[in-house]
Amino acid sequence: MLVVMKQSATDAEIDRVAETIRDMGYDARPIPGRQRTAIGLIGNDGRVDSGRLEGLSGVLEVIVVSHPYKQVSREWKAEDTIVTLPNGTRIGGTEIAIMAGPCAVESEDQIVGIARSLREAGATILRGGAFKPRTSPYSFQGLGEEGLRLLAVAREETGMAIVTEAVEPEAVEIVAEFADIVQIGARNMQNYPLLRRAGQAGKPVLLKRGMSATIKELLLAAEYLLAEGNEQVILCERGVRSFDTHTRNLLDLTAIPVVRGLSHLPIIADPSHGTGVRAKVTPMARAAVAAGADGLMVEVHPDPERALSDGAQSLYPDDFVDLMRQIRVIGRALDRELVPPLGTLRVAESAAG
Amino acid sequence: MLVVMKQSATDAEIDRVAETIRDMGYDARPIPGRQRTAIGLIGNDGRVDSGRLEGLSGVLEVIVVSHPYKQVSREWKAEDTIVTLPNGTRIGGTEIAIMAGPCAVESEDQIVGIARSLREAGATILRGGAFKPRTSPYSFQGLGEEGLRLLAVAREETGMAIVTEAVEPEAVEIVAEFADIVQIGARNMQNYPLLRRAGQAGKPVLLKRGMSATIKELLLAAEYLLAEGNEQVILCERGVRSFDTHTRNLLDLTAIPVVRGLSHLPIIADPSHGTGVRAKVTPMARAAVAAGADGLMVEVHPDPERALSDGAQSLYPDDFVDLMRQIRVIGRALDRELVPPLGTLRVAESAAG
Amino acid sequence: MLVVMKQSATDAEIDRVAETIRDMGYDARPIPGRQRTAIGLIGNDGRVDSGRLEGLSGVLEVIVVSHPYKQVSREWKAEDTIVTLPNGTRIGGTEIAIMAGPCAVESEDQIVGIARSLREAGATILRGGAFKPRTSPYSFQGLGEEGLRLLAVAREETGMAIVTEAVEPEAVEIVAEFADIVQIGARNMQNYPLLRRAGQAGKPVLLKRGMSATIKELLLAAEYLLAEGNEQVILCERGVRSFDTHTRNLLDLTAIPVVRGLSHLPIIADPSHGTGVRAKVTPMARAAVAAGADGLMVEVHPDPERALSDGAQSLYPDDFVDLMRQIRVIGRALDRELVPPLGTLRVAESAAG
Amino acid sequence: MLVVMKQSATDAEIDRVAETIRDMGYDARPIPGRQRTAIGLIGNDGRVDSGRLEGLSGVLEVIVVSHPYKQVSREWKAEDTIVTLPNGTRIGGTEIAIMAGPCAVESEDQIVGIARSLREAGATILRGGAFKPRTSPYSFQGLGEEGLRLLAVAREETGMAIVTEAVEPEAVEIVAEFADIVQIGARNMQNYPLLRRAGQAGKPVLLKRGMSATIKELLLAAEYLLAEGNEQVILCERGVRSFDTHTRNLLDLTAIPVVRGLSHLPIIADPSHGTGVRAKVTPMARAAVAAGADGLMVEVHPDPERALSDGAQSLYPDDFVDLMRQIRVIGRALDRELVPPLGTLRVAESAAG
Repeated sequence: MLVVMKQSATDAEIDRVAETIRDMGYDARPIPGRQRTAIGLIGNDGRVDSGRLEGLSGVLEVIVVSHPYKQVSREWKAEDTIVTLPNGTRIGGTEIAIMAGPCAVESEDQIVGIARSLREAGATILRGGAFKPRTSPYSFQGLGEEGLRLLAVAREETGMAIVTEAVEPEAVEIVAEFADIVQIGARNMQNYPLLRRAGQAGKPVLLKRGMSATIKELLLAAEYLLAEGNEQVILCERGVRSFDTHTRNLLDLTAIPVVRGLSHLPIIADPSHGTGVRAKVTPMARAAVAAGADGLMVEVHPDPERALSDGAQSLYPDDFVDLMRQIRVIGRALDRELVPPLGTLRVAESAAG
Repeated sequence: MLVVMKQSATDAEIDRVAETIRDMGYDARPIPGRQRTAIGLIGNDGRVDSGRLEGLSGVLEVIVVSHPYKQVSREWKAEDTIVTLPNGTRIGGTEIAIMAGPCAVESEDQIVGIARSLREAGATILRGGAFKPRTSPYSFQGLGEEGLRLLAVAREETGMAIVTEAVEPEAVEIVAEFADIVQIGARNMQNYPLLRRAGQAGKPVLLKRGMSATIKELLLAAEYLLAEGNEQVILCERGVRSFDTHTRNLLDLTAIPVVRGLSHLPIIADPSHGTGVRAKVTPMARAAVAAGADGLMVEVHPDPERALSDGAQSLYPDDFVDLMRQIRVIGRALDRELVPPLGTLRVAESAAG
Repeated sequence: MLVVMKQSATDAEIDRVAETIRDMGYDARPIPGRQRTAIGLIGNDGRVDSGRLEGLSGVLEVIVVSHPYKQVSREWKAEDTIVTLPNGTRIGGTEIAIMAGPCAVESEDQIVGIARSLREAGATILRGGAFKPRTSPYSFQGLGEEGLRLLAVAREETGMAIVTEAVEPEAVEIVAEFADIVQIGARNMQNYPLLRRAGQAGKPVLLKRGMSATIKELLLAAEYLLAEGNEQVILCERGVRSFDTHTRNLLDLTAIPVVRGLSHLPIIADPSHGTGVRAKVTPMARAAVAAGADGLMVEVHPDPERALSDGAQSLYPDDFVDLMRQIRVIGRALDRELVPPLGTLRVAESAAG
Repeated sequence: MLVVMKQSATDAEIDRVAETIRDMGYDARPIPGRQRTAIGLIGNDGRVDSGRLEGLSGVLEVIVVSHPYKQVSREWKAEDTIVTLPNGTRIGGTEIAIMAGPCAVESEDQIVGIARSLREAGATILRGGAFKPRTSPYSFQGLGEEGLRLLAVAREETGMAIVTEAVEPEAVEIVAEFADIVQIGARNMQNYPLLRRAGQAGKPVLLKRGMSATIKELLLAAEYLLAEGNEQVILCERGVRSFDTHTRNLLDLTAIPVVRGLSHLPIIADPSHGTGVRAKVTPMARAAVAAGADGLMVEVHPDPERALSDGAQSLYPDDFVDLMRQIRVIGRALDRELVPPLGTLRVAESAAG
């Protein structure tokens, strides 16, 4: 941490800053400059609250040099974390993992039917909301536990792994019972009691970036999960707020290489929520893979026009087949393959048996 | 709701949109224009999900004309809602209500001492965090229930009303037991289970605007509270995300007249979190009152340099006395007075006794 | 400037950074920390291009400590700059200066008529666009030179000073010939050839903040003017881009105390462009004065419904009279008075005569 | 255009809006709804100023349905515009065009040397700044006309086409004399006199999106060029302002499919300015091609550590060779090829001869 003094700062003010730093239990090292003096705080263990220094007389600004997150950082752990699911899908290595499915679980026919066609197209993880956080209290809020049971049926039928969202601490346990990955949605990225519970649930967690969260805040939210002993964490870029309303959100694909530089955790992209418009989902899904994403989460609905939520951003099953073909080609430019389709795995299992 | 068609839309596409609208249970009214056709959806009860229409072939865009919130709107209730606290403070009428206190409750001496000087300066509501949502899992997270008990002691000693935050659904009950106003923080503005519980708690609720929430989203979050039968809701502008880092947040004071136009609920401003820098708190507190705020929430700490959190944005008690003097003058330009100080009220009570 | 190294940085990488700094002509001072090493660049004269250092191997980030602007800063000149106009109006001292008038000059009747009523209400500076930068090539673009001549007629009739915009370098000279203040609009804040010419024009310059300019960029743009030898510069906050569309722009009033801390230049606010909606102009004008603005620029039109541009944000003359009364009261809270009305000045002149 | 009335609007207010619309020369069509009345303005030719209507009593909001740009839109011209350069490069068809080179022209050795290696790697257009708009008046501002002459030498030596920026109206002519494409930079996107002059220059124009420009504003700026009779326009996404400072700008790749839907003009991406950090340029260049960009503009410098500007975001020549290989593969997923390298063209010419 660096405390930058005003040009007009007096020696007494500079001394007081240094004393305060020592009073906080750290070393102070003045660095005289041509324009002004700065004072380095040495020994920062990541817990220094800059507030006490910012308010001191003569201080121009306080610059944080050490990063406040620890276990999520590449400096803590250099090699990539790989999250492995029961059906063999690996997220975070050289393979590209595909999560697909409807925004919300609506019925057994709907979810099992779409799961079959998604598996056929090569996806290995099924998404579907059972509990839906909705901006308006009057919108459809999901089927709840019944939705979880239908997802389990779809897994039974297809072998796909299940990812679905928990929206409150009390619901984490039941979601974790049914799901292979517990999702924390964008609106809850800084819901700390929920993060703590999810960190304790014993299942991988998919953490979506908040609508206006910086990458530092995303990593700090993930730190809550790792601090509970859960390292099986997947980050997800899903678009941030912007001044332009042409798309619902602004998909920040640069977050992908940035996160890969700062953290060992895998990062995927959600171009469906990230754009909000069907015609933009396929181009941005391709772009995410080209930017280096470890996977995608894509909304696909058998009949988008009748979807109970987010129909406008759901692909038709045929669009999804095209998308899979395209990203297979793009993966080659980065020496990456798609996660092998489940059919292949099963054949392998049979052969082994 | 208005469905705007592309210039190239065919009659068949226009017909299909109209049929879909009727299939959803509403009337469709085509409006031919010079450049393109639009189709009005008549009879929208606020529950129409535009997604189904946005995805139809030939559709350029869907424009929402009716507002999705109801009970919070001025069209639902024309007269201002006034929230009345047990100590006589009224929020939302012609008076300006002042909430002040430290970021976090730290000790009995700290909270009772500062409460006395705040009451002396004219504040009637004491703020202080017992449960603190912190961006880093390694920061001080508040005293918890002990903090609530200390706030109750301060109320006992001074007569000030108490406002403090609940950070998860399970904690709403105990916060509501001790506090006069239950605060929902900015990070939790869209934590719907928490909003539902707060709506049922039987106490006034202070709802802070999320860091990148639109005003429409703020009003929809408040709608969750009113939908549970609680109309005693106070909104709070506390700064939004911006591209400039000179201040921690960008205090959006225009939200004050905008909300007053759209809703009957009172709105206050928090210039402490809204700026994050002590030297900017007083000017922006003055500006908020001049913009028409129904009150202020201001952080004041007896010794900001030793505060356990947010010291850099806390006023010294003497700054606060100056601020009160200034906003008293500014109030006159709008024909508004500060809430009468508690001393006066007590004298009145004694006289009555 | 501080070059922060990665934890994994080798001694060779650290040495190379230090050598590069010395090669650039500055001193390098390594500062070992608990987590990582940082290297201070000593002797920065404000011309260091951080790019060369950012790209070096082992570098995590480069933090700029010295500020890149000079002559505009309070560290360069501690006392407030006061801009004085020929009609006696002083901008930047303890008085509050009011610029008012229509968005565009439309006719002699319009501009002289409104000037008379504005002067009556107490304004001393008349605004009015002769050259209008418009987002669409098909919108009304102003009367051009004829507009300048009409402004001069209005000055002749009322004694008000004139502020009007120059939109290209070649037009600065003629604008400066007719106007008392040359305005640089928000879209041109970083039009450097225009800034250079305006800096040479020998007239005070009103520089509006760009739609997404940081305060640092605003001050750097002003530095272009001072670098040409013109210190008579007035800054103007007029709203920045935001994700919320309830108002056209987000008026960033915190910029006022921030600029007053960093610079000696006066700063005013334009609540008309800053909100874009008539009903929000008066509250935000009051708020700007309460925040410490040195003046206001407000659009007033004799018949807003027939204005050729920006009618929706123009006050009626009666609204303006009310506003003047309110800000007079607010000024008292800050020990500030409005600039004395021109009538008084003239009486003084006559008396002197 | 749709004028939405408040629920409380009286019949008289509704009538007045309708009369005003007729007074403006258009048809008014009231559309009664369940919650409120809206009034359609029929016959909008793109010149309606909504201001006059927004300010009327009883009006809640005015919604613009017709788009204000004309000639740039796909509704005006359905087929893609293809810009063809003298050296045979085609921008906007099925080929992907690559513009590469240093931020600024620094010397003959530098520009000719880098041009040779870029041509070798397959680029056909050379970028290089002769006039540099710089945020600080004290930074290197380019070699000016000498820079233009050096670019011409590089073209002579390599056959590459030249793109370089004009920063003021008076300089357009000389830039157009030397360059094959006249670039308008992001800071000047709304510099209308400059746009007008560029539209008249008789050369293709590369128009960069402003730092906080909406896509609608970008298209309106392009409309200024087409309105002067120049349809040879290439748009360029180069990153927008955001709240996160991890990268200099936020590259909005979704703009690519959005623009391709709305306009017939080609659009490329500049991942160098769009990220500001070398390590992010290659991933985002790949992503731009995957999103459907018609080309790339990439900064490459023979010795980035000694670059006079933007060294931190410049690729090394070897990085560029890798990038070209990767985007060749990605292009296949979209059935697109790179523009054929100049060597091949020359051979073809010789064969034809």
